[in-house]
Amino acid sequence: MYYSVRMRAAQGGDHAAGGRHISGAERLVPPGEAAALAGELVERALGHSRGRADFINITVETVAAQAVRLAPIPAVKTVAVADVAAGRVAALEELVRAGVSTAAAQAGMGALAALPDSMRGAMILCAASGSRLDGNGARGVRVSRMDAADGPALLAALRRRGLANDHVREALVLAAKVAAGPGVTAELCWSDDPEYTAGYVASRLGYCRFAHLKEYGCPVGGRVFFAAPGCDVAALVDYLERQPVLATLADWEE
Amino acid sequence: MYYSVRMRAAQGGDHAAGGRHISGAERLVPPGEAAALAGELVERALGHSRGRADFINITVETVAAQAVRLAPIPAVKTVAVADVAAGRVAALEELVRAGVSTAAAQAGMGALAALPDSMRGAMILCAASGSRLDGNGARGVRVSRMDAADGPALLAALRRRGLANDHVREALVLAAKVAAGPGVTAELCWSDDPEYTAGYVASRLGYCRFAHLKEYGCPVGGRVFFAAPGCDVAALVDYLERQPVLATLADWEE
Repeated sequence: MYYSVRMRAAQGGDHAAGGRHISGAERLVPPGEAAALAGELVERALGHSRGRADFINITVETVAAQAVRLAPIPAVKTVAVADVAAGRVAALEELVRAGVSTAAAQAGMGALAALPDSMRGAMILCAASGSRLDGNGARGVRVSRMDAADGPALLAALRRRGLANDHVREALVLAAKVAAGPGVTAELCWSDDPEYTAGYVASRLGYCRFAHLKEYGCPVGGRVFFAAPGCDVAALVDYLERQPVLATLADWEE
Repeated sequence: MYYSVRMRAAQGGDHAAGGRHISGAERLVPPGEAAALAGELVERALGHSRGRADFINITVETVAAQAVRLAPIPAVKTVAVADVAAGRVAALEELVRAGVSTAAAQAGMGALAALPDSMRGAMILCAASGSRLDGNGARGVRVSRMDAADGPALLAALRRRGLANDHVREALVLAAKVAAGPGVTAELCWSDDPEYTAGYVASRLGYCRFAHLKEYGCPVGGRVFFAAPGCDVAALVDYLERQPVLATLADWEE
């Protein structure tokens, strides 16, 4: 048995009551780790760089081991870019290489850049037309119930690559789950942490990091998932929100 | 500033999705204690005698110090009763002494005894007619946002009286808040912990414990609040659910 441990934190009250999203976390841990993790996640929510949360919600839920699927963590490459403009051009090219149309890639990039504030979840756009497919508005689709199959091994592998930070670790786990989703073509993301300017494009080609996808100091970030035309959006959303996934390093080469 | 830290745990999924209530907790603590407390409450929910929770929700919310009111913890007396039948007769007499009509006291006792399973919250009954006043059905009214003003002092005071268990400590804090509520005449409670048979009547006369109000092994307990006729039920429910209260020992004599 596993425990899905989820945290969401907001400022100005509950998200449902109009509070501003501050931070979130998604973990899937053995029973013995659930209680300590709940404490850690509250600690983290109280010290987030996006601001001090005044509302934190933690959910702990059992997950049967048989219900958990494995997904490979994509290989990481970093692309050197001089600034945000160059980073976004390079990210757009990577999206197109992954099978997203130029129009859809531009639409996704534009939608993220135009956000008035961070969303709790992601937008799903059609990889051909660029039109929004999920009906979740400003809330988006929140990817939930996932973790690294072996957290210490992932941390060690990232450390060997000079990438041992929380952002990369959590993004890789999420990207692994998303990339294995039914109908997913690619993902585009930059962080809502004002001190973190890097972002990535993940797809069957791997996890491609760009050092600058957002200006330093900007507290607005988000995610776009590009889905193949004709994809079953309801099934994809259900997978993203509910399917427990452990992300494995099985495909990584040292 | 304080943090309201609330826990509710259920079996068979979220309460809102039909899960069976296992346990709950309400605390109001200084900022430095919130994270560790969240961990403790998950730990407690996972080891409750009513069963193993498969769904736990923790909410942490800031409360301005100026919003907190104080309420005196009622003095405790214990009434020796031989068995449940005698305990219920004695509790009924105490309710009547506190100003509840015999019919209403019998109605409240009967409603608790007839519960198919524990409620998350309490029933509010008219202290004169015995009719149900809250419209919350099987959910009831959940008393929230309270704690002992000085937890260690309360524990020490209870220890000197041989009453240092979690049930009494938490019940006294809740009873202090309830008794200070607008329009409250008295409270009747017995625990849903199958291993704990004691219960109490709290009112302006104090907190009167009866060693047996429920058969050993019974996992069904609950609370009835008796409210004066003509009381503003909406204001009372708002107070019970939302007014932050710290319960003080100011009225206790050593």
